[in-house]
Amino acid sequence: MLPPGFTGAAIDRADHLRLDQTRIAELVVHAEARLLRLEGIDPAIDESGRLVWEPVTGDGHLFLGLDEGRPLFAPIVEAGSGAARAFALFDLLNRMDARDAAIWGVARSLNTWHHRHVFCGVCGTRTVSFRAGWGRKCPDCGAEHFPRVDPVVIMLAEHEGRVLLARQPHYPPRRYSALAGFVEPGESIEEAVAREIEEEAGIEVSRVRYVASQPWPFPGQLMIACIADAASDAIRLDTNELEDAFWASRDEVRAALAGAPDSRFGAPPPFAIANTLLTRWSEQECEED
Amino acid sequence: MLPPGFTGAAIDRADHLRLDQTRIAELVVHAEARLLRLEGIDPAIDESGRLVWEPVTGDGHLFLGLDEGRPLFAPIVEAGSGAARAFALFDLLNRMDARDAAIWGVARSLNTWHHRHVFCGVCGTRTVSFRAGWGRKCPDCGAEHFPRVDPVVIMLAEHEGRVLLARQPHYPPRRYSALAGFVEPGESIEEAVAREIEEEAGIEVSRVRYVASQPWPFPGQLMIACIADAASDAIRLDTNELEDAFWASRDEVRAALAGAPDSRFGAPPPFAIANTLLTRWSEQECEED
Repeated sequence: MLPPGFTGAAIDRADHLRLDQTRIAELVVHAEARLLRLEGIDPAIDESGRLVWEPVTGDGHLFLGLDEGRPLFAPIVEAGSGAARAFALFDLLNRMDARDAAIWGVARSLNTWHHRHVFCGVCGTRTVSFRAGWGRKCPDCGAEHFPRVDPVVIMLAEHEGRVLLARQPHYPPRRYSALAGFVEPGESIEEAVAREIEEEAGIEVSRVRYVASQPWPFPGQLMIACIADAASDAIRLDTNELEDAFWASRDEVRAALAGAPDSRFGAPPPFAIANTLLTRWSEQECEED
Repeated sequence: MLPPGFTGAAIDRADHLRLDQTRIAELVVHAEARLLRLEGIDPAIDESGRLVWEPVTGDGHLFLGLDEGRPLFAPIVEAGSGAARAFALFDLLNRMDARDAAIWGVARSLNTWHHRHVFCGVCGTRTVSFRAGWGRKCPDCGAEHFPRVDPVVIMLAEHEGRVLLARQPHYPPRRYSALAGFVEPGESIEEAVAREIEEEAGIEVSRVRYVASQPWPFPGQLMIACIADAASDAIRLDTNELEDAFWASRDEVRAALAGAPDSRFGAPPPFAIANTLLTRWSEQECEED
């Protein structure tokens, strides 16, 4: 079974080195050190779908970690130089090596986080990068700011062997996916799943089960995939968020995942955890208890 | 089985109302509306361990949601007026009604988040609260800032029927707990669990299983509790983070949870998910597969 997208970077993040400026300076000039080439904050890839690495020049880069001892860095680029998320990028991701996508995802998330934290939220002073790019510090009030990861629940409500799928207006044609929403302060994963399904589809759920997770670098979510039992199949759609929803059978989900031309809907792409979630559900012959 | 601490608030967060200033203004003057009394950002509680609610005065409060139709608000207090986290507060939590602790947790997390986002991270301008306290907006560059939730993994490495417990130097005497650490950008829950156990104890793990989650309002974590299989029981302690670690048997964990005077260690308090995690593990007679 394929692991979720954007996982498997398998780099030693070596976070104990981040605060050690002497060691980081040594790693920058290490003969094997490499700097990731970015186009804005998008990946530069070669004809075989691999990331492009260059000798390290300059400093102040993000320390990605050690890859079998080789120090890897990524540039921290100026705000505004990032290409916008676009379907062209998603086409690129379909061609990229999975491990490379995971490595690039770290560089993208950290860069967008830096862009949102140029000034100190506590006192308004311009901040500086520290911890080899894994933080920003205020030279005035001393506040330290750390990279943000937003947990998001993404889930299938299940009712009598079918699961609830929905589409947002901006999706590509025919695409349907799982419901999703940000976990708010003061709620568990299970409570967020129940709240989001109630808000978006008017359905009460119970018995929330965790399935898998992935980092999602647009800009920096932790996607937490779950399945829950729906008390009813009567949908009350939140039309501010969604334009349609329906209950899909296992056969319909399998056909969509296989890319069958006559499938009822188009599946989310393999690098999205909605695909992982649908794949795992569709491979169950019957519901485990 | 007890649900994890800080869950079960069971309030309708009614997030569709947050942007509706007219409706929020109506709810503020609703005859049944109530405002949470805080002491700094600590809870004020009465002699029976319940939160104290007062008629709503003023405006600009945080809208907590609807409790059986009754609008509940919490004050957004000035930065610096928050009492420091202290063991006295933890004693209070042991006496608090569980549902009330969950409601107060939301108010505490949101208040500390506001204090860290007084100025816009993008441009340095002073921000203003919007969405009934569930966001801050920059009047200059227009950037919107949303409450932050930091996902943290907390986990037991298991080896031949025993689990790894450790203590940090600031713990109360005799206390041991599960290892824990922040999920970083670019990693899944499973990858974060493996990285943290490797960093803190030098142990390789596989087969990470999700167990439960809870919000933790100090200041705003989402605690994600897992169990994983350890490849070895040879501990290489990270002495920067931990002062001791050992492998605990089910009997030792049960004795600690029961508060037995001759227990090998002191268990984490019931409102911490480490307690939930140890309780669930100790109740398994044998490992499920």
